[in-house]
Amino acid sequence: MNIGAAARAVANFGFHDLRLVDPYDVAFREAVSAVGGAHILQSARVFPTVAEATADCSLVVGTTAAQRRVAQHPTERLETGVVRIRNHSGRVGLMFGSEKFGLSNDDMSFCHALVRIPTSPETPSMNLGQAVAVCLYELIREDHKPKPTRFDPVLGADAEQLTTMLHEALDASGYTNRITATSTERKIRRWIRRLRIQKKDAPLLLGILRQIIWKFRNSV
Amino acid sequence: MNIGAAARAVANFGFHDLRLVDPYDVAFREAVSAVGGAHILQSARVFPTVAEATADCSLVVGTTAAQRRVAQHPTERLETGVVRIRNHSGRVGLMFGSEKFGLSNDDMSFCHALVRIPTSPETPSMNLGQAVAVCLYELIREDHKPKPTRFDPVLGADAEQLTTMLHEALDASGYTNRITATSTERKIRRWIRRLRIQKKDAPLLLGILRQIIWKFRNSV
Repeated sequence: MNIGAAARAVANFGFHDLRLVDPYDVAFREAVSAVGGAHILQSARVFPTVAEATADCSLVVGTTAAQRRVAQHPTERLETGVVRIRNHSGRVGLMFGSEKFGLSNDDMSFCHALVRIPTSPETPSMNLGQAVAVCLYELIREDHKPKPTRFDPVLGADAEQLTTMLHEALDASGYTNRITATSTERKIRRWIRRLRIQKKDAPLLLGILRQIIWKFRNSV
Repeated sequence: MNIGAAARAVANFGFHDLRLVDPYDVAFREAVSAVGGAHILQSARVFPTVAEATADCSLVVGTTAAQRRVAQHPTERLETGVVRIRNHSGRVGLMFGSEKFGLSNDDMSFCHALVRIPTSPETPSMNLGQAVAVCLYELIREDHKPKPTRFDPVLGADAEQLTTMLHEALDASGYTNRITATSTERKIRRWIRRLRIQKKDAPLLLGILRQIIWKFRNSV
Protein backbone atom coordinates (compact mmCIF):
# COMPACT_ATOMS: atom_id res chain seq x y z
CA MET A 1 0.00 0.00 0.00
CA ASN A 2 2.79 2.40 0.89
CA ILE A 3 4.70 1.51 -2.25
CA GLY A 4 1.57 2.13 -4.29
CA ALA A 5 1.05 5.50 -2.63
CA ALA A 6 4.70 6.39 -3.26
CA ALA A 7 4.30 5.44 -6.93
CA ARG A 8 1.26 7.65 -7.21
CA ALA A 9 3.15 10.63 -5.77
CA VAL A 10 6.03 9.94 -8.17
CA ALA A 11 3.55 10.12 -11.07
CA ASN A 12 1.71 13.16 -9.66
CA PHE A 13 4.84 15.26 -9.61
CA GLY A 14 6.24 14.15 -12.95
CA PHE A 15 9.05 11.86 -11.78
CA HIS A 16 9.44 8.34 -13.07
CA ASP A 17 12.37 6.39 -11.71
CA LEU A 18 11.13 4.45 -8.65
CA ARG A 19 13.61 2.01 -7.13
CA LEU A 20 12.92 -0.46 -4.38
CA VAL A 21 15.49 -2.07 -2.13
CA ASP A 22 14.60 -5.59 -1.07
CA PRO A 23 10.83 -4.96 -0.83
CA TYR A 24 9.07 -6.96 1.83
CA ASP A 25 6.01 -7.53 -0.31
CA VAL A 26 6.76 -9.31 -3.57
CA ALA A 27 3.26 -8.57 -4.83
CA PHE A 28 3.77 -4.82 -4.60
CA ARG A 29 3.14 -4.28 -8.30
CA GLU A 30 -0.55 -4.95 -7.68
CA ALA A 31 -0.81 -2.16 -5.14
CA VAL A 32 -4.29 -0.65 -5.29
CA SER A 33 -3.22 2.72 -3.95
CA ALA A 34 -1.19 3.48 -7.08
CA VAL A 35 -4.19 4.99 -8.92
CA GLY A 36 -2.64 6.97 -11.75
CA GLY A 37 0.83 5.69 -10.85
CA ALA A 38 0.46 2.14 -12.15
CA HIS A 39 2.99 2.73 -14.92
CA ILE A 40 5.53 3.88 -12.32
CA LEU A 41 4.92 0.76 -10.29
CA GLN A 42 5.22 -1.49 -13.34
CA SER A 43 8.56 -0.02 -14.33
CA ALA A 44 9.92 0.20 -10.77
CA ARG A 45 13.23 -1.58 -10.41
CA VAL A 46 14.09 -3.82 -7.49
CA PHE A 47 17.61 -3.93 -6.07
CA PRO A 48 18.92 -6.27 -3.40
CA THR A 49 20.99 -3.59 -1.67
CA VAL A 50 21.18 0.17 -1.21
CA ALA A 51 24.66 0.08 -2.76
CA GLU A 52 23.26 -1.32 -6.00
CA ALA A 53 20.21 0.96 -6.01
CA THR A 54 22.40 4.05 -5.70
CA ALA A 55 25.32 2.89 -7.84
CA ASP A 56 24.61 5.40 -10.65
CA CYS A 57 23.79 8.34 -8.35
CA SER A 58 26.35 11.03 -7.60
CA LEU A 59 24.24 12.49 -4.81
CA VAL A 60 22.15 10.45 -2.39
CA VAL A 61 19.85 12.30 0.00
CA GLY A 62 18.11 10.45 2.82
CA THR A 63 14.88 11.60 4.47
CA THR A 64 14.11 11.53 8.18
CA ALA A 65 11.42 12.54 10.63
CA ALA A 66 11.85 15.96 12.11
CA GLN A 67 12.90 14.87 15.57
CA ARG A 68 15.57 12.42 14.68
CA ARG A 69 19.06 13.72 15.14
CA VAL A 70 21.78 11.97 13.26
CA ALA A 71 25.05 13.24 14.57
CA GLN A 72 27.19 11.77 11.82
CA HIS A 73 25.28 13.49 9.02
CA PRO A 74 24.59 17.04 8.05
CA THR A 75 20.80 17.30 8.39
CA GLU A 76 18.89 20.13 6.81
CA ARG A 77 15.26 21.09 6.67
CA LEU A 78 13.58 19.91 3.47
CA GLU A 79 13.21 23.49 2.15
CA THR A 80 16.96 24.09 2.20
CA GLY A 81 18.12 20.54 1.53
CA VAL A 82 16.25 20.64 -1.76
CA VAL A 83 18.43 23.49 -2.98
CA ARG A 84 21.40 21.13 -2.89
CA ILE A 85 19.46 18.65 -5.01
CA ARG A 86 18.37 21.28 -7.53
CA ASN A 87 21.90 22.59 -7.91
CA HIS A 88 23.39 19.15 -8.45
CA SER A 89 24.22 18.37 -12.03
CA GLY A 90 24.33 14.56 -11.82
CA ARG A 91 21.73 11.93 -10.95
CA VAL A 92 20.28 12.30 -7.47
CA GLY A 93 18.75 9.52 -5.39
CA LEU A 94 16.16 10.51 -2.79
CA MET A 95 15.97 7.74 -0.20
CA PHE A 96 13.03 6.84 2.05
CA GLY A 97 13.06 4.26 4.82
CA SER A 98 10.23 1.97 5.80
CA GLU A 99 7.33 3.70 7.52
CA LYS A 100 7.96 1.89 10.80
CA PHE A 101 11.70 2.18 11.16
CA GLY A 102 12.86 4.87 8.78
CA LEU A 103 16.36 4.61 7.39
CA SER A 104 18.86 2.43 9.24
CA ASN A 105 22.30 3.71 10.14
CA ASP A 106 23.61 1.45 7.40
CA ASP A 107 21.22 2.98 4.84
CA MET A 108 22.27 6.45 5.94
CA SER A 109 25.95 5.71 5.47
CA PHE A 110 25.20 5.79 1.73
CA CYS A 111 23.81 9.32 1.97
CA HIS A 112 25.71 12.50 1.25
CA ALA A 113 23.14 14.47 3.19
CA LEU A 114 19.89 14.05 5.08
CA VAL A 115 16.77 16.17 4.87
CA ARG A 116 14.07 16.29 7.51
CA ILE A 117 10.47 17.18 6.82
CA PRO A 118 9.62 19.90 9.34
CA THR A 119 6.82 18.02 11.08
CA SER A 120 5.41 18.87 14.48
CA PRO A 121 7.44 17.61 17.47
CA GLU A 122 4.27 16.04 18.91
CA THR A 123 3.53 13.95 15.80
CA PRO A 124 6.75 13.84 13.78
CA SER A 125 6.31 10.52 12.00
CA MET A 126 4.67 10.73 8.60
CA ASN A 127 2.94 8.15 6.50
CA LEU A 128 5.39 7.03 3.81
CA GLY A 129 3.19 7.93 0.84
CA GLN A 130 2.53 11.37 2.30
CA ALA A 131 6.24 11.92 3.01
CA VAL A 132 7.11 11.06 -0.59
CA ALA A 133 4.41 13.44 -1.87
CA VAL A 134 5.69 16.31 0.30
CA CYS A 135 9.34 15.82 -0.72
CA LEU A 136 8.57 15.57 -4.44
CA TYR A 137 6.27 18.58 -4.24
CA GLU A 138 9.07 20.58 -2.62
CA LEU A 139 11.31 19.54 -5.50
CA ILE A 140 8.97 20.79 -8.22
CA ARG A 141 7.47 23.81 -6.46
CA GLU A 142 8.25 27.13 -7.99
CA ASP A 143 9.53 30.02 -6.00
CA HIS A 144 7.81 32.74 -7.88
CA LYS A 145 6.41 35.79 -6.25
CA PRO A 146 2.64 35.91 -6.21
CA LYS A 147 1.32 37.96 -9.05
CA PRO A 148 -1.06 40.62 -7.85
CA THR A 149 -4.50 39.25 -8.63
CA ARG A 150 -5.94 40.94 -11.66
CA PHE A 151 -8.63 43.24 -10.44
CA ASP A 152 -10.63 45.34 -12.83
CA PRO A 153 -12.71 47.72 -10.76
CA VAL A 154 -15.80 49.54 -11.96
CA LEU A 155 -15.31 53.03 -13.29
CA GLY A 156 -16.62 56.06 -11.47
CA ALA A 157 -19.63 56.29 -13.78
CA ASP A 158 -20.72 52.70 -12.99
CA ALA A 159 -20.08 53.23 -9.29
CA GLU A 160 -22.21 56.33 -9.41
CA GLN A 161 -25.01 54.57 -11.27
CA LEU A 162 -24.93 51.84 -8.63
CA THR A 163 -25.03 54.47 -5.92
CA THR A 164 -28.02 56.24 -7.47
CA MET A 165 -29.96 53.07 -8.08
CA LEU A 166 -29.25 51.62 -4.64
CA HIS A 167 -30.33 54.89 -3.11
CA GLU A 168 -33.50 54.86 -5.19
CA ALA A 169 -34.24 51.28 -4.16
CA LEU A 170 -33.65 52.04 -0.49
CA ASP A 171 -35.77 55.12 -0.79
CA ALA A 172 -38.61 53.18 -2.34
CA SER A 173 -38.33 50.54 0.38
CA GLY A 174 -38.65 53.13 3.12
CA TYR A 175 -35.11 52.51 4.39
CA THR A 176 -34.11 56.18 4.03
CA ASN A 177 -35.95 59.15 5.43
CA ARG A 178 -36.06 62.70 4.16
CA ILE A 179 -34.21 64.21 7.10
CA THR A 180 -31.07 62.10 6.72
CA ALA A 181 -31.34 61.67 2.94
CA THR A 182 -28.17 63.58 2.02
CA SER A 183 -25.95 61.86 4.56
CA THR A 184 -27.45 58.51 3.58
CA GLU A 185 -26.58 59.09 -0.06
CA ARG A 186 -23.01 59.93 0.95
CA LYS A 187 -22.88 56.82 3.09
CA ILE A 188 -24.06 54.68 0.17
CA ARG A 189 -21.57 56.33 -2.16
CA ARG A 190 -18.65 55.55 0.17
CA TRP A 191 -19.88 52.03 0.79
CA ILE A 192 -20.16 51.24 -2.94
CA ARG A 193 -16.53 52.37 -3.42
CA ARG A 194 -15.31 50.36 -0.44
CA LEU A 195 -16.83 47.16 -1.85
CA ARG A 196 -14.34 47.19 -4.69
CA ILE A 197 -16.86 45.89 -7.18
CA GLN A 198 -15.39 44.42 -10.34
CA LYS A 199 -16.43 45.75 -13.71
CA LYS A 200 -17.79 42.36 -14.75
CA ASP A 201 -20.01 42.21 -11.67
CA ALA A 202 -21.63 45.60 -12.28
CA PRO A 203 -24.28 44.44 -14.81
CA LEU A 204 -25.57 41.78 -12.38
CA LEU A 205 -25.85 44.28 -9.55
CA LEU A 206 -27.46 46.93 -11.73
CA GLY A 207 -29.94 44.36 -13.03
CA ILE A 208 -30.89 43.33 -9.50
CA LEU A 209 -31.41 46.94 -8.44
CA ARG A 210 -33.36 47.76 -11.58
CA GLN A 211 -35.69 44.84 -10.90
CA ILE A 212 -36.20 45.85 -7.27
CA ILE A 213 -36.98 49.42 -8.26
CA TRP A 214 -39.35 48.26 -11.00
CA LYS A 215 -41.19 46.01 -8.53
CA PHE A 216 -41.60 48.82 -6.03
CA ARG A 217 -42.91 51.18 -8.68
CA ASN A 218 -45.41 48.70 -10.05
CA SER A 219 -46.71 47.20 -6.84
CA VAL A 220 -47.51 50.32 -4.91
CA MET B 1 -9.02 5.68 5.22
CA ASN B 2 -8.70 9.03 3.48
CA ILE B 3 -10.12 10.86 6.47
CA GLY B 4 -7.64 9.04 8.68
CA ALA B 5 -4.76 9.99 6.39
CA ALA B 6 -5.96 13.60 6.34
CA ALA B 7 -6.09 13.61 10.15
CA ARG B 8 -2.54 12.31 10.31
CA ALA B 9 -1.30 15.09 8.02
CA VAL B 10 -3.18 17.64 10.13
CA ALA B 11 -1.30 16.35 13.21
CA ASN B 12 2.04 16.10 11.40
CA PHE B 13 2.04 19.75 10.50
CA GLY B 14 0.77 21.06 13.81
CA PHE B 15 -2.79 21.93 12.82
CA HIS B 16 -5.78 20.73 14.82
CA ASP B 17 -9.17 21.83 13.57
CA LEU B 18 -10.47 19.12 11.21
CA ARG B 19 -14.02 19.56 9.99
CA LEU B 20 -16.02 17.08 7.97
CA VAL B 21 -19.04 17.86 5.85
CA ASP B 22 -21.59 15.07 5.75
CA PRO B 23 -19.03 12.23 5.82
CA TYR B 24 -20.06 9.15 3.93
CA ASP B 25 -18.60 6.80 6.50
CA VAL B 26 -20.09 7.28 9.93
CA ALA B 27 -17.39 5.06 11.46
CA PHE B 28 -14.60 7.34 10.29
CA ARG B 29 -13.31 7.93 13.81
CA GLU B 30 -11.93 4.41 13.85
CA ALA B 31 -9.78 5.05 10.76
CA VAL B 32 -6.59 3.02 11.03
CA SER B 33 -4.54 5.33 8.84
CA ALA B 34 -4.68 8.10 11.44
CA VAL B 35 -1.55 6.82 13.24
CA GLY B 36 -0.43 9.76 15.32
CA GLY B 37 -3.48 11.74 14.31
CA ALA B 38 -6.05 9.88 16.41
CA HIS B 39 -6.63 12.90 18.64
CA ILE B 40 -7.40 15.01 15.56
CA LEU B 41 -9.90 12.43 14.39
CA GLN B 42 -11.54 12.21 17.80
CA SER B 43 -12.04 15.94 18.01
CA ALA B 44 -13.04 16.38 14.36
CA ARG B 45 -16.37 18.12 14.00
CA VAL B 46 -19.06 17.00 11.59
CA PHE B 47 -21.26 19.54 9.82
CA PRO B 48 -24.25 18.81 7.61
CA THR B 49 -23.37 21.52 5.07
CA VAL B 50 -20.42 23.53 3.77
CA ALA B 51 -22.24 26.70 4.86
CA GLU B 52 -22.21 25.55 8.47
CA ALA B 53 -18.64 24.19 8.34
CA THR B 54 -17.33 27.55 7.09
CA ALA B 55 -19.65 29.82 9.06
CA ASP B 56 -16.86 31.16 11.31
CA CYS B 57 -14.25 31.50 8.52
CA SER B 58 -13.52 34.84 6.90
CA LEU B 59 -11.50 33.23 4.11
CA VAL B 60 -12.33 29.90 2.49
CA VAL B 61 -9.84 28.43 0.03
CA GLY B 62 -10.72 25.40 -2.06
CA THR B 63 -8.20 22.97 -3.52
CA THR B 64 -8.28 21.47 -7.01
CA ALA B 65 -6.27 19.23 -9.27
CA ALA B 66 -3.85 21.02 -11.55
CA GLN B 67 -5.78 20.58 -14.75
CA ARG B 68 -9.14 21.71 -13.65
CA ARG B 69 -10.05 25.15 -14.84
CA VAL B 70 -12.75 26.91 -12.94
CA ALA B 71 -13.68 29.99 -14.89
CA GLN B 72 -15.74 31.59 -12.14
CA HIS B 73 -12.93 31.53 -9.60
CA PRO B 74 -9.49 33.03 -9.36
CA THR B 75 -7.25 29.94 -9.30
CA GLU B 76 -3.66 30.20 -8.17
CA ARG B 77 -0.85 27.71 -7.80
CA LEU B 78 -0.52 26.43 -4.26
CA GLU B 79 2.79 28.26 -3.74
CA THR B 80 1.25 31.66 -4.37
CA GLY B 81 -2.25 30.94 -3.07
CA VAL B 82 -0.73 30.16 0.31
CA VAL B 83 0.57 33.73 0.58
CA ARG B 84 -3.02 34.96 0.66
CA ILE B 85 -3.76 32.52 3.50
CA ARG B 86 -0.68 33.53 5.50
CA ASN B 87 -1.49 37.23 5.15
CA HIS B 88 -5.09 36.78 6.24
CA SER B 89 -5.75 37.87 9.77
CA GLY B 90 -8.98 35.92 10.41
CA ARG B 91 -9.84 32.23 10.49
CA VAL B 92 -9.17 30.45 7.20
CA GLY B 93 -10.85 27.28 5.99
CA LEU B 94 -8.94 25.08 3.57
CA MET B 95 -11.43 22.91 1.73
CA PHE B 96 -10.84 19.54 0.08
CA GLY B 97 -13.30 17.59 -2.00
CA SER B 98 -13.77 13.85 -2.09
CA GLU B 99 -10.97 11.96 -3.78
CA LYS B 100 -13.19 10.82 -6.63
CA PHE B 101 -15.06 13.98 -7.50
CA GLY B 102 -13.18 16.86 -5.92
CA LEU B 103 -15.16 19.93 -4.96
CA SER B 104 -18.55 20.44 -6.57
CA ASN B 105 -19.52 23.76 -8.13
CA ASP B 106 -21.77 24.27 -5.15
CA ASP B 107 -18.86 23.66 -2.73
CA MET B 108 -16.72 26.09 -4.69
CA SER B 109 -19.30 28.84 -4.51
CA PHE B 110 -18.38 29.11 -0.82
CA CYS B 111 -14.70 29.72 -1.67
CA HIS B 112 -13.05 33.11 -1.93
CA ALA B 113 -10.23 31.57 -3.92
CA LEU B 114 -9.02 28.24 -5.28
CA VAL B 115 -5.52 26.80 -5.17
CA ARG B 116 -4.26 24.07 -7.42
CA ILE B 117 -1.47 21.71 -6.50
CA PRO B 118 0.94 21.84 -9.46
CA THR B 119 0.73 18.18 -10.37
CA SER B 120 1.78 16.69 -13.68
CA PRO B 121 -0.74 17.04 -16.54
CA GLU B 122 -0.42 13.28 -17.17
CA THR B 123 -1.39 12.31 -13.63
CA PRO B 124 -3.02 15.34 -12.05
CA SER B 125 -5.30 13.67 -9.53
CA MET B 126 -3.79 13.17 -6.09
CA ASN B 127 -4.72 10.88 -3.28
CA LEU B 128 -6.67 12.94 -0.73
CA GLY B 129 -4.36 12.24 2.22
CA GLN B 130 -1.34 13.15 0.11
CA ALA B 131 -3.00 16.34 -1.14
CA VAL B 132 -3.77 17.42 2.43
CA ALA B 133 -0.15 16.70 3.45
CA VAL B 134 1.25 18.76 0.57
CA CYS B 135 -1.04 21.75 1.21
CA LEU B 136 -0.37 21.83 4.95
CA TYR B 137 3.36 21.43 4.37
CA GLU B 138 3.27 24.41 2.02
CA LEU B 139 1.52 26.38 4.76
CA ILE B 140 4.16 25.69 7.40
CA ARG B 141 7.27 25.63 5.21
CA GLU B 142 9.80 28.32 5.85
CA ASP B 143 11.19 30.42 3.13
CA HIS B 144 14.64 30.84 4.54
CA LYS B 145 17.71 30.92 2.44
CA PRO B 146 19.89 27.86 2.84
CA LYS B 147 22.64 28.49 5.30
CA PRO B 148 25.99 27.67 3.80
CA THR B 149 26.87 24.30 5.28
CA ARG B 150 29.43 24.70 7.98
CA PHE B 151 32.65 23.47 6.58
CA ASP B 152 35.77 23.51 8.69
CA PRO B 153 38.64 22.59 6.41
CA VAL B 154 42.03 21.32 7.54
CA LEU B 155 44.75 23.91 8.00
CA GLY B 156 47.74 24.04 5.72
CA ALA B 157 49.87 22.22 8.28
CA ASP B 158 47.49 19.25 8.45
CA ALA B 159 47.13 19.18 4.68
CA GLU B 160 50.88 19.14 4.37
CA GLN B 161 51.23 16.35 6.94
CA LEU B 162 48.66 14.35 4.99
CA THR B 163 50.56 15.05 1.77
CA THR B 164 53.87 13.92 3.25
CA MET B 165 52.45 10.79 4.81
CA LEU B 166 50.48 9.79 1.72
CA HIS B 167 53.58 10.32 -0.34
CA GLU B 168 55.59 8.20 2.07
CA ALA B 169 53.00 5.42 1.98
CA LEU B 170 52.83 5.46 -1.82
CA ASP B 171 56.61 5.48 -1.94
CA ALA B 172 56.80 2.47 0.35
CA SER B 173 54.17 0.65 -1.70
CA GLY B 174 56.15 1.14 -4.89
CA TYR B 175 53.51 3.41 -6.44
CA THR B 176 55.97 6.25 -7.04
CA ASN B 177 59.28 6.04 -8.83
CA ARG B 178 62.40 8.14 -8.36
CA ILE B 179 62.25 9.80 -11.78
CA THR B 180 58.76 11.30 -11.36
CA ALA B 181 59.01 11.72 -7.58
CA THR B 182 58.83 15.53 -7.53
CA SER B 183 55.89 15.82 -9.89
CA THR B 184 54.12 13.04 -7.98
CA GLU B 185 54.52 14.91 -4.72
CA ARG B 186 53.09 18.01 -6.33
CA LYS B 187 50.22 15.98 -7.73
CA ILE B 188 49.46 14.55 -4.30
CA ARG B 189 49.65 18.00 -2.72
CA ARG B 190 47.14 19.42 -5.18
CA TRP B 191 44.86 16.41 -4.84
CA ILE B 192 44.81 16.62 -1.03
CA ARG B 193 43.74 20.28 -1.27
CA ARG B 194 41.09 19.53 -3.86
CA LEU B 195 39.52 16.92 -1.60
CA ARG B 196 38.46 19.65 0.85
CA ILE B 197 39.10 17.45 3.87
CA GLN B 198 37.40 18.59 7.06
CA LYS B 199 39.48 19.20 10.17
CA LYS B 200 37.60 16.55 12.10
CA ASP B 201 38.39 13.93 9.43
CA ALA B 202 42.15 14.54 9.49
CA PRO B 203 42.98 12.35 12.53
CA LEU B 204 41.27 9.32 10.94
CA LEU B 205 43.14 9.78 7.67
CA LEU B 206 46.46 10.38 9.39
CA GLY B 207 45.92 7.28 11.54
CA ILE B 208 45.22 5.15 8.47
CA LEU B 209 48.33 6.42 6.70
CA ARG B 210 50.46 6.00 9.84
CA GLN B 211 49.33 2.39 10.12
CA ILE B 212 50.02 1.65 6.45
CA ILE B 213 53.48 3.18 6.70
CA TRP B 214 54.20 1.26 9.93
CA LYS B 215 53.12 -1.99 8.28
CA PHE B 216 55.37 -1.39 5.28
CA ARG B 217 58.33 -0.57 7.52
CA ASN B 218 57.86 -3.62 9.69
CA SER B 219 57.02 -6.22 7.06
CA VAL B 220 59.78 -5.60 4.60
